[in-house]
This record gives sequence, C-alpha cells and structure tokens, in this order.
Amino acid sequence: MQCKRVLLTENDIPTAWYNLQADLPEPVPPPLHPATHEPVGPELLTRIFARALIEQEVSRERWIEIPSEVRRLYAIWRPTPLVRAYDLEKALGTPARIYFKDESHSPPGSHKPNTALPQAYYNKQEGILRLSTETGAGQWGSSLAFVCSLLGMQCKVYMVKVSYNHKPYRRSMMQLWGAQVTPSPSDETEAGRQILAADPNCPGSLGIAISEAVEVAMHRDDTNYTLGSVLNHVMLHQSIIGLEAERQFEMIGDWPDVVFGCVGGGSNFAGLVFPLLRHKIAGKRETRFVACEPHSCPSMSRGQYRYDYGDTTKLTPLVKMHTLGHGFVPPGIHAGGLRYHGMAPMVSLAAKLGLVESAAFHQTECFQAARLFAATEGIIPAPETSHAVRGAVAEALRCRETGEEKCILFNLSGHGLCDLGSYDRYLSGDLEDYSYPQEKIEESLAELPQID
Amino acid sequence: MQCKRVLLTENDIPTAWYNLQADLPEPVPPPLHPATHEPVGPELLTRIFARALIEQEVSRERWIEIPSEVRRLYAIWRPTPLVRAYDLEKALGTPARIYFKDESHSPPGSHKPNTALPQAYYNKQEGILRLSTETGAGQWGSSLAFVCSLLGMQCKVYMVKVSYNHKPYRRSMMQLWGAQVTPSPSDETEAGRQILAADPNCPGSLGIAISEAVEVAMHRDDTNYTLGSVLNHVMLHQSIIGLEAERQFEMIGDWPDVVFGCVGGGSNFAGLVFPLLRHKIAGKRETRFVACEPHSCPSMSRGQYRYDYGDTTKLTPLVKMHTLGHGFVPPGIHAGGLRYHGMAPMVSLAAKLGLVESAAFHQTECFQAARLFAATEGIIPAPETSHAVRGAVAEALRCRETGEEKCILFNLSGHGLCDLGSYDRYLSGDLEDYSYPQEKIEESLAELPQID
Repeated sequence: MQCKRVLLTENDIPTAWYNLQADLPEPVPPPLHPATHEPVGPELLTRIFARALIEQEVSRERWIEIPSEVRRLYAIWRPTPLVRAYDLEKALGTPARIYFKDESHSPPGSHKPNTALPQAYYNKQEGILRLSTETGAGQWGSSLAFVCSLLGMQCKVYMVKVSYNHKPYRRSMMQLWGAQVTPSPSDETEAGRQILAADPNCPGSLGIAISEAVEVAMHRDDTNYTLGSVLNHVMLHQSIIGLEAERQFEMIGDWPDVVFGCVGGGSNFAGLVFPLLRHKIAGKRETRFVACEPHSCPSMSRGQYRYDYGDTTKLTPLVKMHTLGHGFVPPGIHAGGLRYHGMAPMVSLAAKLGLVESAAFHQTECFQAARLFAATEGIIPAPETSHAVRGAVAEALRCRETGEEKCILFNLSGHGLCDLGSYDRYLSGDLEDYSYPQEKIEESLAELPQID
Repeated sequence: MQCKRVLLTENDIPTAWYNLQADLPEPVPPPLHPATHEPVGPELLTRIFARALIEQEVSRERWIEIPSEVRRLYAIWRPTPLVRAYDLEKALGTPARIYFKDESHSPPGSHKPNTALPQAYYNKQEGILRLSTETGAGQWGSSLAFVCSLLGMQCKVYMVKVSYNHKPYRRSMMQLWGAQVTPSPSDETEAGRQILAADPNCPGSLGIAISEAVEVAMHRDDTNYTLGSVLNHVMLHQSIIGLEAERQFEMIGDWPDVVFGCVGGGSNFAGLVFPLLRHKIAGKRETRFVACEPHSCPSMSRGQYRYDYGDTTKLTPLVKMHTLGHGFVPPGIHAGGLRYHGMAPMVSLAAKLGLVESAAFHQTECFQAARLFAATEGIIPAPETSHAVRGAVAEALRCRETGEEKCILFNLSGHGLCDLGSYDRYLSGDLEDYSYPQEKIEESLAELPQID
C-alpha cells in the first residue's frame, strides 16, 4: 500500500508562484473607480497597497519568483502533506481514491498565511511597518497577526464587534501575536463614528470593518491595507498549494479527475486549482474543478457575472465578478463561514469560461460530511472547509453507484479547533438549512450599477 | 543552512517501542494493594485493563513490537517533525542551537494519542469495545475519543464538572468524535452519588472522576479503564517520540546536550527522554534531562519518593513515586495544567538514580517564554508545554552568558489553540505566581501510609 501522507521536503518548496493570468484565454477585466467607473490606475492603489503587490495584481507573467526570505518562513508550515483518506474511502465503500491537501498545519490553522506572509514581506521591503485589515471570525486577522509577529511589524485588526465579543479565542490569538485588535464599528475612524452615531449598539459587519481598515491605510502614511482573498495577487500567492500538490501527484503516479475546494472569496480554491487548471487549458489533462459554496450564500451558482463593489459601503473599486450584490447579507442561522457576497474576479472569469464549475450545499449536509471525515481521518475540518469535504464525499458516493475508480482531491483549507461552537450547534440539532429566496437575490442585484 | 524541519517518512515510524525498564540499574518497585499493602498481582488489574497492557506494565523486555495496525494509524500524525528554532535563537541572541520535537500535529493537538491508540487497540484485540476514562481540561479525554472513533469503539469520559461547564470546546471535540461525556460527579456511579449527597454543587476533581471511571470498568464486563499518564505502559508507548528524535538527530549529525520536557504525570517527558537516556546509561552520551514543573505543583523538586495512592480517594494501588501527597490540591490561580500530585514511577526512579533532574518555574515566566516562542516560531504552545519552553529559553540565555554552543532540545507536547483563555488571563495581567507553602506540603505528606 502506498504511504498515507505524501511528503515533500523544505527544498521542494516552489521557487515561483504560478499566475493563471498568463494562461487565461482572455484578460481579467480591470477594476473600475467607484465614482467615475473608469479603470483604476495604480496611483490610487499605491496609497494603500505595496507597489510590488500592485504589480503582481496586474501581471501576466506566468511565474513570479518567491523571495528567499518568504520561502524560509514558509518552511514553518510548508510543504504541507498530500494525504490519502483510506479510512474515509472504506467507510464510504467507494472504489474512488480520495486525497486531500492538508493546509491546516499552519500555526493559525488555515491556508491564509500563504498570502499573509508575502503581503507583509513586500510591505516591509517598501518601508511600511504597519498593516491594517478587517476580520470576521478571525481566520484572516490571526494569519496577518502571525506573520507580522514573525517579521517584526505592527498589525491593526478591525474585528466585527459581534465576533470580538463572542469569539474570544481568535481575538486572544491575535493579541498573543502582538496585534492591536479593535471591535468594529469603532470611534477611531470617520466610517466607524458615522455608524455609531446612527446606531450605538451596531454589532458590526465585514463591510464596515473593511471601511475602517481602508480608511486608516488611506490616512496614515505608515500604514498599508491588506486583504485576505478576492484579489489577483492573493490567488497568485495561494498557488503554492496546487504547485506542491502537482509535484506530490507526480511522485505517486496519480492525478485527480475531480477537485473540490470551498469558496468564500475564492482563495483556497484558486490556490489548489489554478496550477492544475493550466494543464487542462493546455489540453493535457481532463480534470473537473468544483467550487463548493453554501446554499445560503450562492454567489457562483445563483449570482451574476457583473461589475460590483467589493464592500457594502461602496468604497472599494468595482470589480467584475460573480456576485449576489454588495447589499447581500447571508442569514444569521448560517454557521459555516463563506459569507462574502462576491467572488474573486479570476475565479469568476474561469467559471464564465467554463474552466471551473460550482455546486451549492446545505450546512447540515456539510457538517455531516465533516463529522464522518473527523471520525475516520481524525482531523476536524473548519466549517468553511466542510463544504469541500461534502463535495468530495458526494462524488465518492456517486462512484460507489457507478463503480468508477475516480481520483478525487479536495483542499482541507483549515481545521475547526477554534470553531467547535458551530459543531456543537450541529450536534444539538440547532442548525437549520436555508436557501436564499430568488426574489431577494434579484432585489439585491437590482442595486448594482449598470456597467456591462 | 540546514533545513528548519527534519522530516521522517511513514516507513521510518519505529517498529518497536523502547522499554527503559530493561536498562534501569534497579527495578521499578511493585504497586501495592491499597488495603493490604501487599504487591498487587495481575489478576486484580485484569478487571479493568487489557492483558497485553498489564504484561507491558511489568515487562523488562527492551523492545516491544508495535502492531502493524497501530503503525498504520500512527501515520495520521506521525512521524512528527524535529524543528530547529532559528528565529527563537536569534531573538535570544544565544549561541545555542535550539530544537523542538513537535507533537502538536495530532488531531487532538498533543502527544496523548501516542498511547491512547495502542491502549484502545489492545482492548479491541481482547474483545473489549468500550473504554472509560476521566479527563480534566480534556486533552486526554479528547485523545481517547479520537482513537476510539478510528477503531469503531465506544468511549465514556467523566469530565470534571467545572471544566465541562467552562471549557466547552474540548467537550464538543469529544462529542464530535462520538464519545459520551458526563460531567463528574455524576449520579451514574456509587462514587458520584456519595459525593453529590454530601455536596450537590460539588465542582468535581480529577480524583473523583478517576473513581467514577474506574468504578464503571470494575462493574461492567464490556468496559475497561484507560489512563493517560503515570503507568509504565504509557511511558512505553510514548517512547516513539524519543526514538524518532534519535533518528532525526543522527540524520543531521547533531545530538542534544540538554533536554527539557514538562511534567504532570510524566508521559511526554518520559516519551522524549527515555530512548535518549539509554545512551547515557550505556555511558555513550553525556546528556542532561530536565523535568520542568510548576512551582505550584512541585512533586519532583519538593515532594518525597514514597508509596502513595494514585487518586485522592485511595481506590487505586499504592505506587512508589515522587509525590506531594494524594490530598494535595494545586491552587485555583494556577493556569498551566500539570496539576497531578504524583509522578510516573519510572520517571521518579530515574530521578532517584540521578539520571534525570528537575526544575520548577512560575506560571508567568512560562507564559512569557511561550509568548516569545509564538512570536518567533509561530506555534502557540499549550500552557503545560510552556514549562518546557521556559526551561529551554532559560538554558539558551545561560549559553548567551557563557558563550557555550550547546544543543538544546525540548518537547513541544501540544498546542494551545484550545487554551487561549489562559493566555488571555496572562496578557491581561490576571495571573499571579504562587509557590506552595512548605508546611502545607508537609501536612499533605504526613497523611501518607508508612511503608518504606
């Protein structure tokens, strides 16, 4: 029997990230200014982003070198194992081979540091020693706090107030890594003060927290802003996942027939999928790529491919993406993360071109699949990740029916050790399934500017 | 520069555990019956333990084969990396080389599954499909729940009530892995009912939970009891840590001058140390081994080497060990785990023979060291583990003074992602240091039976 875990050594950490923009048959539409609807030039972005990152954002170079210091620090948690889920296969009685790429071993527990590290690194190279960002449940904020700690940088996190008060573990984690964590809305920014004046008890939202973090970066010369998903340079950095997986499959002489990743903003999906997708574009491999999303926030399966704002308050540039509308708010009963109204422009374009597909799942079936995975393979997936697990399990069950010996791969984007409250609600039967009503999605989409 | 992480492959998982009993210059004194004070024969133990484990408990064989199914499932998290802490070294300005064996990658997050797995396996081999145990904060209970899930066994955990109510994350983890978790004291056992009759609001203790778990195993033919530390067979199973470390040091051509491990019952310390200790006993290597314990529960540095009960309620056999007395209760202000009044008999004997030494630390200096470690190396250590980190950091600082280029190794026995509440209390300045008063230790020791 082949090994359970396919391991690479530190010397196998890729030396360059892969940029899908080089191989897409058409370019990613440019971001537009929120007021003028004209393409945004780099000069606006340099106020809040490092120049190197803006260059990566628009680059069509196929390979972009990973700085040696970034590779050195990647080695804290990379390369990550490719794991064969033998016991899950057995429990499902499937002839399929199920593999997962285990991104849960980074200190904050997810794939997010793959981009947090280079984002912080390039800012430091350009003399910026303070970064701001927003965080919801805390996965992204804790990843940025972690890498800022490694690089000796300051980190300012606006954390959605309701999470700040009810999810103290990730807040503690960020503070332990030296970050300054502020519940949002706060009185530190104009955006926050306006919200609080209208509603002193506002529980906050990711949209508000983005506004606060961007405002601070706009107004302070020593501070830049960072984003944990959606943007092209984030997809670029995450490609390290798929590049490692590619080498690991070559080592064992196998190759995935179908790949599953969960999608919120799209970064862990893109990270695993894009390097493999280039072989499909080149006509060398027949692989299906399935973006797994919740029925309660179905941007790919039920949204439109349109220009929309990245945030609720229309401060960010407009980007062309699959979106449910910037006013879309997923229901409070949804426990599984992946709450973003839009989708990374590169993932969206790949979907429009028919290179990737999507599937929506209900939260209880996702937790059920995650529970089976935990029972057989041991690892407790993050609630977000459970959507990818569900996709893979459903495919393996189809293979049981058809007898197909497919090779299935999914991205285990993070562990759920800081999200056990959601599992508690699942186990006690408190979670309900929910499909977003079509008329409410249409209402939300009706608010979009008419650009295309 | 050598690699940061020294990795082994699955084929390098040791094929046998190492048993220090084969090489100790004198035998471990036998356990005594709690009432008669006569040596306990195996027949009493077979009521609650698997026969294979009782044989291992008294075996003086040097190598005991690891069953292939146990090796197969070890591969879920083993071999674990040996990691060089370059960035910690740099932050300390030390000429020392600091390594840690990273046992935090198991699904429950600690070294505990190394013994939970074989304990469950041997029971299953002997037809026992239900295991009982106790747990305090939940590290051991979650490890047993995890392996029972893998092996398709039932798991019954008595969890100290105050932890059950205030540490819901580990309870959720156990339940997700299918364990039945009961707050202790409960009305399910005679021991529990007696306690509740006297004090209906009793918050519970590890001693009470042990009594409940043992009682269930005594009275139900289908159920055996398991213990996560202290016993000889637990030390045996944990030797896999040191056996891997030994091979990893050989690969890089280095060898530790001094090794640190935290001690509560002693199992992670013994696991890393015993395989290395055999080279010291054989006169081949000069290595110091330091057991790191809290000042608030200093069984090795201030207890006596005496026969004492394993539990508060004097149900267990008497074992000869370093103890503060079975009536000893560490203060509530202590946040760092390691609360057991005694110490594994094998670790105790090794200490008496001068083969290992001990050092006590205050909790705030441990959290401070753990914070520095998290800031430089990324990983957040469990509060228990922070005692080993503190030991290693103190040694590295001594090396800075003396200029010695020592090789320092410590056991990163677990991560702290489920213990962030303790870090919160540290960061907010709420933790106090505490040395146990000598007269209270003497009072507690005065309760011990006069046997030796």
